[in-house]
Amino acid sequence: MNIGIIGLGLIGGSMAKAIKQNTPHTVFGHDLQDTIIKKAILIGAVDEPLTEELIPSCDLLIVALYPQDTIDFVKAHADSIKKGSIVLDCCGVKQVICQALEPVAKENGFIFMGGHPMAGVAHAGFTHAKKALFNNASMILTPAKGTRIEDVQKIKVLSESIGFTNTQISTPEEHDRVIAFTSQLAHVVSNAYIKSPSALEHKGFSAGSYKDLTRVAKLNENMWSELFLDNNLFLAEEIDGIIQRLQQYSTAIKEKNAAALCTLLKEGKERKMIIDGEKF
Amino acid sequence: MNIGIIGLGLIGGSMAKAIKQNTPHTVFGHDLQDTIIKKAILIGAVDEPLTEELIPSCDLLIVALYPQDTIDFVKAHADSIKKGSIVLDCCGVKQVICQALEPVAKENGFIFMGGHPMAGVAHAGFTHAKKALFNNASMILTPAKGTRIEDVQKIKVLSESIGFTNTQISTPEEHDRVIAFTSQLAHVVSNAYIKSPSALEHKGFSAGSYKDLTRVAKLNENMWSELFLDNNLFLAEEIDGIIQRLQQYSTAIKEKNAAALCTLLKEGKERKMIIDGEKF
Repeated sequence: MNIGIIGLGLIGGSMAKAIKQNTPHTVFGHDLQDTIIKKAILIGAVDEPLTEELIPSCDLLIVALYPQDTIDFVKAHADSIKKGSIVLDCCGVKQVICQALEPVAKENGFIFMGGHPMAGVAHAGFTHAKKALFNNASMILTPAKGTRIEDVQKIKVLSESIGFTNTQISTPEEHDRVIAFTSQLAHVVSNAYIKSPSALEHKGFSAGSYKDLTRVAKLNENMWSELFLDNNLFLAEEIDGIIQRLQQYSTAIKEKNAAALCTLLKEGKERKMIIDGEKF
Repeated sequence: MNIGIIGLGLIGGSMAKAIKQNTPHTVFGHDLQDTIIKKAILIGAVDEPLTEELIPSCDLLIVALYPQDTIDFVKAHADSIKKGSIVLDCCGVKQVICQALEPVAKENGFIFMGGHPMAGVAHAGFTHAKKALFNNASMILTPAKGTRIEDVQKIKVLSESIGFTNTQISTPEEHDRVIAFTSQLAHVVSNAYIKSPSALEHKGFSAGSYKDLTRVAKLNENMWSELFLDNNLFLAEEIDGIIQRLQQYSTAIKEKNAAALCTLLKEGKERKMIIDGEKF
């Protein structure tokens, strides 16, 4: 099939590389930077530039832009998108996107499928894109009510052919609630963690736990701000939740209450073991 | 030399295995569980049980017990410890230990050296001890004022012969302040993180950031409670610090203040880059 990819950044660029490497599909690519399109064609990640004229020939459009840009792009091109084709987005939030684009798809006779490839690295852009980015990762799909199973299957097959080992079917609401915890809160906490004045002195005094807690502190503030604000209710609830829990530890430590502190730590340990499927 | 190791748990057991593997020293070992001593002798990690009679023959005693037990053990055996020999502890806190034991060492004519091997795994006990535990790790030493450089050098040489690639010389105060951030806060945050109700739903929705943030949640609550309370002032300050910073993010998100949120995230990113020696 003909696949159009809009945005050849880390995600879109990796999609292009992985699709060309692993499937016989034709890939048309678009990026704001013309040099990136040329580079992508040169290395064989894209067959041709995705021009306005080529959009109606695409069986699948993968939009790999920031949330608002994703909405704007699909709305602006809605009437030239092929009837019956699929439009897949790649945003880290789903309610905002699906609420905006499902009606547009319905009106214009194409299928909109919310997607969130759970993969990334600390660096952005086509230069860091790689065909192996999605290996062993999870692809979350939030198909609209009434989506035919064959269309979901089509995306599942494509996802698995480019490295994803799990396709998670969800609703936009469930996605945003769980992602607020698994991904967004992790980035907020890590970013807040590194700001301790003691961080500047860590060398020689740190091991794995410091490294783990601070790994994702280096983030793209523009992209994450937009994602966080598009999921503000769920994320604020998660942040307030961990603040409240941290206050319990702080109180127990200040009061030198060994029993209370031990109970708090034991509860956390046991929760982790339950989640990991271990006995205790 | 003759090395006595008290406590053949994860740290003491790994010390015994690594010393016997990498050096010609004789190792005497003691543990509360007699079967562990037998097992250690059987696999060649220990030459002989460390009896009361053998303590005066040790040139180095490595105490690998919990903080209070470390203090109690050294005090109880102070008069049988060889004059001029070195006693090294392995606790994750140093002020409490050094304040208690430096005077005891002075009175009894031996050298007390605070030590903190920055290595560990999620599982405790001799069964999980391994000779490679200290490979590429940092050994922090907090020698008392007036300690001769030759005695520090002796421990440095031993540390490096069993895998440590960095020997960090510090004061007990500096150690406890920085460790409160690099290690203790990481354990508290991770333990609090996993308690979100959303954690039970993470499967299929999580990637590296979730994994990193929750890795050290599974901890030994008895050991860590004691370590946390022995460092209560520095640790409470770190916890309150991150709570305060998290509140800033929460406020910006609730107010949908994109500029403020973006600034907070950018500050964290830049701090991480400065610490990692990267340009931005």
